[in-house]
Amino acid sequence: MLKVPDHQVAGHRAGDGKLGPLIDDSGKFYKPIQSDGRGSKEVAFYTSVSSYTNIPSHIRRFFPIFHGTKLIEASDGSGQQPHLVLQNVFSGYLNPSIMDIKIGSRTWYPQASEEYIQKCFMKDRETSSLALGFRLSGLQIESKGSAFWKPDRKLIRKFTAEEVRLVLRQFVSSNSSADSGVDPDCTFVSTVYGGSGGILAQLLELKEWFEHQTILHFYSCSVLMVYEKESVVKEASSGAEVKLVDFAHVFEGNGVIDHNFLGGLCSLINFISEILTCSDVHTAKASLPKLL
Amino acid sequence: MLKVPDHQVAGHRAGDGKLGPLIDDSGKFYKPIQSDGRGSKEVAFYTSVSSYTNIPSHIRRFFPIFHGTKLIEASDGSGQQPHLVLQNVFSGYLNPSIMDIKIGSRTWYPQASEEYIQKCFMKDRETSSLALGFRLSGLQIESKGSAFWKPDRKLIRKFTAEEVRLVLRQFVSSNSSADSGVDPDCTFVSTVYGGSGGILAQLLELKEWFEHQTILHFYSCSVLMVYEKESVVKEASSGAEVKLVDFAHVFEGNGVIDHNFLGGLCSLINFISEILTCSDVHTAKASLPKLL
Repeated sequence: MLKVPDHQVAGHRAGDGKLGPLIDDSGKFYKPIQSDGRGSKEVAFYTSVSSYTNIPSHIRRFFPIFHGTKLIEASDGSGQQPHLVLQNVFSGYLNPSIMDIKIGSRTWYPQASEEYIQKCFMKDRETSSLALGFRLSGLQIESKGSAFWKPDRKLIRKFTAEEVRLVLRQFVSSNSSADSGVDPDCTFVSTVYGGSGGILAQLLELKEWFEHQTILHFYSCSVLMVYEKESVVKEASSGAEVKLVDFAHVFEGNGVIDHNFLGGLCSLINFISEILTCSDVHTAKASLPKLL
Repeated sequence: MLKVPDHQVAGHRAGDGKLGPLIDDSGKFYKPIQSDGRGSKEVAFYTSVSSYTNIPSHIRRFFPIFHGTKLIEASDGSGQQPHLVLQNVFSGYLNPSIMDIKIGSRTWYPQASEEYIQKCFMKDRETSSLALGFRLSGLQIESKGSAFWKPDRKLIRKFTAEEVRLVLRQFVSSNSSADSGVDPDCTFVSTVYGGSGGILAQLLELKEWFEHQTILHFYSCSVLMVYEKESVVKEASSGAEVKLVDFAHVFEGNGVIDHNFLGGLCSLINFISEILTCSDVHTAKASLPKLL
């Protein structure tokens, strides 16, 4: 049985006769193959990535598992259409808190048409991509039980550095809400961002690879960050995971590193490092009287 | 006594009634303060950088020493004009081999005029900036005695990845020449690029700072790499130095890292690392029969 994903934060959404991705109960994600060339490029990426034997396995795990392509009933009622069959990266979570972050100050690639370049160029300047080296594409934070705070996507794409800092703190707080007057408590920061399996450690692994790899350039690709608040509370383990998604604009690197992706990734890493460092300082300060 | 610099590889050149920088015998470099606003911005940078107490001293040494401003007789015969008085970074070298590399895939800044943005945007796409994250702005390599190989600046700005790789090898070779058929011997690679005081180590120090510093963003700024072949031969020490120059387009970072500069710097670092690694492999191979 196929259904509309519960936890989609970015991209086209299925339903109301519109074309969008579907999921099944076995942990698979079905993404319609767009007919304008982007779809076939993404299929080519997933097909070829398995042939790049020089991508180490600790990097491969950042890509959703690829299960081929399949003709299935499209969500817009247009009948059987080809879909990418991928791992549903949220299937292991009950109420995942999710951030979708499009990496790079530039989302266009040199080989693109002039029209496409101008369109992206404008969007990169209108959103936070140019200033921050990335832009938020989607966000949902569990607030209470299975209720989610899911701010408007048009708003979050234009976030300033201050707003990004705030939302990255809200992401790991127990008191996250739409009310920006509430100071995020950062309760989950050390479990979700910190630690050897935390989000920062995973981003640093990616960074280390991007500093050297000259095989592929990733334009308009997103970093997904996901975790489950319930798990932190109950099991003191967040299940925090980083994934890379959206490969419709991936090109050969031709001996040059992907400096556009790497720069944006380092910018995101610095935001998260600063939050971890600040919270260390706060914890240290808070615990100081006990020590004395 | 002021004179035209012997070893200028980029920027406007004095002489023939043209305005350009001058040097004196005491190791000072006099740069005319351009009247279009760029000059005053560069003066502001040098003046304010001393007030940024959070720039560590091991980073400060990458900036030429600033000796204030001074009215001196301009090189174009227009009379007394204001000049920046800076350290002549080449004064300690007799026949320096020099590379001037403009860092960043983007040389324009968000606050610039639409006209300026379009001009830079075109130039970044026409040169190697977009593809490599940097472009060569100037180059001179000592070939024999005080003779220099100084390729045309218009050519080197458009170098492909392969051409950059070749010229970075020629830069540390004893047989560098305009003849691209000659395979560079990379004689000086371990002394100049390698080692604890070599160019790679210095670039990595800069990189480490750029990963965290959110004080300043450097647009259209250059990394200079300089060394003396004679010193390597005679003293087995290259005197290799990295400097940052050209600060007419430096802006406040406002809490965000300079992902544009960092990405380009990492790209340059990867080219140099690869050359060092390859030459290690070559050396290892060459010395293998002796070991067996």
